[in-house]
Amino acid sequence: MNAFTYYNPTRIEFGRDKENSVGELVAQDGIKRVLLVYGTGSIKKNGLHERVIVSLNQAGVEYVEFGGIVSNPLLSDVYDAINLVKLNNINAILAVGGGSVIDSAKAIAAGSVVETDVWDFFINKASIEKALPVYTIVTLAAAASEMNGNSVITNEVTKQKYSIASVLLNPKISIVNPELMMSVTNDYLAYSAVDIIAHSIEVYFTATDHPNFQSRLVESIIKTVIETTEILIKDPTDYDARAEFAWASSQALNGLTSSGTGGGNFPNHMIEHALSALFNIAHGAGLAIVIPAWMKWYKDKNLPQFERFAREVFGKNSAEDGITALSAWFDSIGAPVSLSAGNIPRESIPDIAQNAYALGKLWGMGDNYSVKSIEEILKNA
Amino acid sequence: MNAFTYYNPTRIEFGRDKENSVGELVAQDGIKRVLLVYGTGSIKKNGLHERVIVSLNQAGVEYVEFGGIVSNPLLSDVYDAINLVKLNNINAILAVGGGSVIDSAKAIAAGSVVETDVWDFFINKASIEKALPVYTIVTLAAAASEMNGNSVITNEVTKQKYSIASVLLNPKISIVNPELMMSVTNDYLAYSAVDIIAHSIEVYFTATDHPNFQSRLVESIIKTVIETTEILIKDPTDYDARAEFAWASSQALNGLTSSGTGGGNFPNHMIEHALSALFNIAHGAGLAIVIPAWMKWYKDKNLPQFERFAREVFGKNSAEDGITALSAWFDSIGAPVSLSAGNIPRESIPDIAQNAYALGKLWGMGDNYSVKSIEEILKNA
Repeated sequence: MNAFTYYNPTRIEFGRDKENSVGELVAQDGIKRVLLVYGTGSIKKNGLHERVIVSLNQAGVEYVEFGGIVSNPLLSDVYDAINLVKLNNINAILAVGGGSVIDSAKAIAAGSVVETDVWDFFINKASIEKALPVYTIVTLAAAASEMNGNSVITNEVTKQKYSIASVLLNPKISIVNPELMMSVTNDYLAYSAVDIIAHSIEVYFTATDHPNFQSRLVESIIKTVIETTEILIKDPTDYDARAEFAWASSQALNGLTSSGTGGGNFPNHMIEHALSALFNIAHGAGLAIVIPAWMKWYKDKNLPQFERFAREVFGKNSAEDGITALSAWFDSIGAPVSLSAGNIPRESIPDIAQNAYALGKLWGMGDNYSVKSIEEILKNA
Repeated sequence: MNAFTYYNPTRIEFGRDKENSVGELVAQDGIKRVLLVYGTGSIKKNGLHERVIVSLNQAGVEYVEFGGIVSNPLLSDVYDAINLVKLNNINAILAVGGGSVIDSAKAIAAGSVVETDVWDFFINKASIEKALPVYTIVTLAAAASEMNGNSVITNEVTKQKYSIASVLLNPKISIVNPELMMSVTNDYLAYSAVDIIAHSIEVYFTATDHPNFQSRLVESIIKTVIETTEILIKDPTDYDARAEFAWASSQALNGLTSSGTGGGNFPNHMIEHALSALFNIAHGAGLAIVIPAWMKWYKDKNLPQFERFAREVFGKNSAEDGITALSAWFDSIGAPVSLSAGNIPRESIPDIAQNAYALGKLWGMGDNYSVKSIEEILKNA
């Protein structure tokens, strides 16, 4: 077991109606004025926006609104929001939405307290030393952004989908009410399931050490995601299934499962970020395309762990059968498992590989992931 | 799944040699002078005490020493230490030891910032609203005290072994180096294993809801404890086994496994606290006596979960067989599984039951645990 630091100071407030206390929770921390960040409007249609405003008003917390965050969130929006924060004497960011909204909130929180370009943090030109506090109300369980310090933003000018990570960006409080997730459509449910499984298996397969306990945690998450996704496809309003799905999602990328493993790396995310930077495909859909292809390519580098995965998660006897079972499960829930199913032209493989390779260099992925290797992986898709 | 708050702001620094950075870590938080709390001297014999002092000196952190904390730690020691803190302008408590030392440090931290009697917190006469920061270096993995806000102290005058819990008492930083645990004797290893399993199963069996994910987490902890204990009995210096044992121990009582379950209660701890308040038996030994007896008494109140336990942990087909397997396993590692094996006279059952019942009232255990019921349970032991 490798040395590690585990530090996750995010407080989770989980359960029905918890969002109606958001104003009180924020005010308790001495916050006077927040930037209220959200997406393209669903929270206005379903009444959540209004309830948040009522709660803020009741607690005497002022707010400035910044809506319109899109999936694969854009640097230009982050820039605009930072300007708004600086002009309005705002002292916290309140994100209401899924991973894209929360990731944007974190980038805004980091960029609002410096005079330099926030993108410098993403290209490792500067490091984060302070940030405004972030609060979240989660409407989609997938990214685990509500319980970590990660943010992934797309620079639409340079076509780079890059990330930052700092415990300073961990939300102070995240409100998770599974009822707010019941309107998620089945295709986005599927993409979310794939994303959570991706977070679970990246380190599980690539780590330098595989403590049994850590592997068991990962398998517990994956089994829970599979089981609850199948329930939710049939009944999107099953509260308990939504709740377990959401809680497992937070655990998949909050530092717990990777502790002691040596950390591993994130090759599937690396390749997917290139895919969605170039094609604006949903993150989970891109991952469903990449994962089985990568697993086939990688399995012989860590055969015992692939055999363990097959056995523990799917009750299968070989690494190959485990990969086939996962791919078939992705397919069964409606996630694309090939480039063609995702409408990605095979001719673009070299471009995707170049883009992913550039990101991999930034992430310190090492020699395993040359442009040629990434092309090989993509040809499996 | 029930509503819950999960908030665990303790930072874990895990790995070899981490204790040598303790001075630096404490100084980074602006701490000038600590109360160094430890037990009955083993850290002086094995050199840990000296290394801690060197680290504190190098970082310019002053210290006042308070040694001599015993297992089943005493209120009188807590009182003495609080006086020392108040006289010496101390601004943090550094605990070096196992659960008893860390629990004492928390009580000292809470009692040093008030003028009233610290015991008032234990008998619910006052609630904790502030505390000095606590730092820990863990030498025994069992209590999970390094990663929670709980403290159990024995009032030797009233013969009450009572507890407090507050996130304000969560250690700021806990240093966990499995190498520091290699000198733990096999009997204390066994008691620790029992204690961790007790923390795992109390809520697992008594909760109002049993989300599969939460049950899987608990089973992962128990399987890991069983597996690593068996390794460590044969080779106490196996680093990886010590490490997994320690990390699973922290997870068993840090708020993770109980989240969403409705919380359950702690009947085995209730009865054991009475046992060790009256007989000063090791906590884990007391638990080994109580647990199988309680399981037999309780199983029909939650048969499906007892059957699940039998199946998932021991591969057995009935609740009874699961209980028998756990009891046999306790016995196999040298933990006492009956009152007689623990040298507790059967005539004292009424006294133990009375003491436990008084604690149960304080814990809000409800009508299930009358004096008569507790006597029935103890007669199973």
